[in-house]
Amino acid sequence: MYGAGDVRVETIADPTIQHATDAIVRVVRACVCGSDLHPYHNMPAQEHGQQMGHEFLGIVEQAGADVTTVKPGDLVVASFSYQDNTCEFCRAGVQTACVHGGFFSAAQAELIRVPLADGTLVKLPAEVDEKLLPSLLTLADVYGTGYHAAKCANVSAGDTVAVIGDGAVGLLAVLSARQLGAERIILMGRHKTRTDLGREFGATDVIAERGAEGIAIVRDLTGGGAHKVLEAVGHRPAYDQAVGIVRAGGVISRVGVPQYEQAPVGFASLFGRNITLNGGPAPVRAYIDALLPGILNGTVDPGQVFDRTVTLDEVPDAYRAMDNREVLKALIRF
Amino acid sequence: MYGAGDVRVETIADPTIQHATDAIVRVVRACVCGSDLHPYHNMPAQEHGQQMGHEFLGIVEQAGADVTTVKPGDLVVASFSYQDNTCEFCRAGVQTACVHGGFFSAAQAELIRVPLADGTLVKLPAEVDEKLLPSLLTLADVYGTGYHAAKCANVSAGDTVAVIGDGAVGLLAVLSARQLGAERIILMGRHKTRTDLGREFGATDVIAERGAEGIAIVRDLTGGGAHKVLEAVGHRPAYDQAVGIVRAGGVISRVGVPQYEQAPVGFASLFGRNITLNGGPAPVRAYIDALLPGILNGTVDPGQVFDRTVTLDEVPDAYRAMDNREVLKALIRF
Repeated sequence: MYGAGDVRVETIADPTIQHATDAIVRVVRACVCGSDLHPYHNMPAQEHGQQMGHEFLGIVEQAGADVTTVKPGDLVVASFSYQDNTCEFCRAGVQTACVHGGFFSAAQAELIRVPLADGTLVKLPAEVDEKLLPSLLTLADVYGTGYHAAKCANVSAGDTVAVIGDGAVGLLAVLSARQLGAERIILMGRHKTRTDLGREFGATDVIAERGAEGIAIVRDLTGGGAHKVLEAVGHRPAYDQAVGIVRAGGVISRVGVPQYEQAPVGFASLFGRNITLNGGPAPVRAYIDALLPGILNGTVDPGQVFDRTVTLDEVPDAYRAMDNREVLKALIRF
Repeated sequence: MYGAGDVRVETIADPTIQHATDAIVRVVRACVCGSDLHPYHNMPAQEHGQQMGHEFLGIVEQAGADVTTVKPGDLVVASFSYQDNTCEFCRAGVQTACVHGGFFSAAQAELIRVPLADGTLVKLPAEVDEKLLPSLLTLADVYGTGYHAAKCANVSAGDTVAVIGDGAVGLLAVLSARQLGAERIILMGRHKTRTDLGREFGATDVIAERGAEGIAIVRDLTGGGAHKVLEAVGHRPAYDQAVGIVRAGGVISRVGVPQYEQAPVGFASLFGRNITLNGGPAPVRAYIDALLPGILNGTVDPGQVFDRTVTLDEVPDAYRAMDNREVLKALIRF
């Protein structure tokens, strides 16, 4: 990416092992993330492009001398963060705060260097049906991120859950809330093809209205608000909507990356009604082991969030199409 | 109170039963709360005074026809909120959001009307040692509020907890954190007589510094921040301090009533490190049953927060002395 709206496909030098804990992975599937659209809107034009992408699965091409859990030829999926998975924060399930960790930013490519391969890559069954690859790729970010929203909110049997946002993360927050036993799942979104998929994933109600009108409808529907609100947008109006629809004593769990810093947290918004605010960058590595079996045995099909498949050469158009909302999420097939 | 700095003792009409669920209590002990000092600073002068006080214990003088759990002659303590203790929110442990509830504001008086007496009053042993009355009175607010801070933060064995504020609530948050098994308790406060009591209640470290300096010291002391931060002040600098000293993946639990509405909650403050923000007006009614035995059997002595005892006539001077920080918390003895 060279700036807002300017994505190019270029040939650059292959990545190489830098540390004995690195691996090189040949990418089999990658994708474009809703969060990639922020720089696609805002990035100042620059002379040197920056690589993009943080979601991938592929075949290990080369493993550093200290890598013990994967070897060349293994099919693997990575979390969008890399981490040692052994430090205090990783053990506490906050892998995105790993003391040695960081975030991928070069996965829309044929080859990628993976730091801390043992803590980052998860080996997949070798003979997995190719049809499952899209769903397995969602473990890299969007499924784990939707699941993080539901876990942070402690979604439990009988809960009324409201999900704000019908992007891939919002839809997979719906799926996750259903998996965790929510009784009623209200999806707030206004793109019918997306909210239809949300219904397939478990949404019991769809509310297209936003702002004061949307708040009034949800409060009426729930008799005073939802127990758990999963915010998968990241803009301030979505935060305000979350505050408006959460029930006293409830939780607002955010996984949409906030595009704001200040927001109301005082007596009138959070404090007076004992509202909990939590969430953050999802430690998806922590969830892969739990979520993988459901994909392999066909219980869930989170890969339905991909509604277009492109080649590497078509990636610039995939950005354009996602930005125009023609496409929910684009899969890159190598 | 007729305005900032203007507290008067006056004779008014006795309260009477208004609803069959009311009781009238003859107050035996009441007190002045840190939160009473906010209007003592800010209240515009007005022609008609307003009654004050929300913490009391006393003897039931009269019970409405529908009151079943207490009767005239019983020694009782009330939570600072009144509630039915049966609605959905009460059952969920958020009594301060009771659909029929409210807050007391006339407890610095000889007699008080208690709405929803069955959900609000807790009967105490008739023959209780008078020396325990101050500790029993803390169940009405400050002990339960400190305990709420520790419960919201899910303080657990081995945790490093930081408590911001050396007022009565902060000190009882220290005591509560110790009861819940915290390994290290850092009390941030700068009034030596108060922090000395904090040490007696279980603080392992006392930090007098504030702002950037205080943050640096706590981060250094804890190798990156405290797991749980209990904020018992309510001013914006205390919030900012909490954000500065909390560990990635940690919790900021607030019980100091926020004197601000907006605060940072974005990537740089809460989101990026998966920080949880919670707390609110404490549902102390929910905690009385759990906290009462420790007082009766002498395990804890939260009544040590009272460092002056006054008569009703001396209440104006008690406000003055608390406001000047001569006194931590004034007990009113009738």
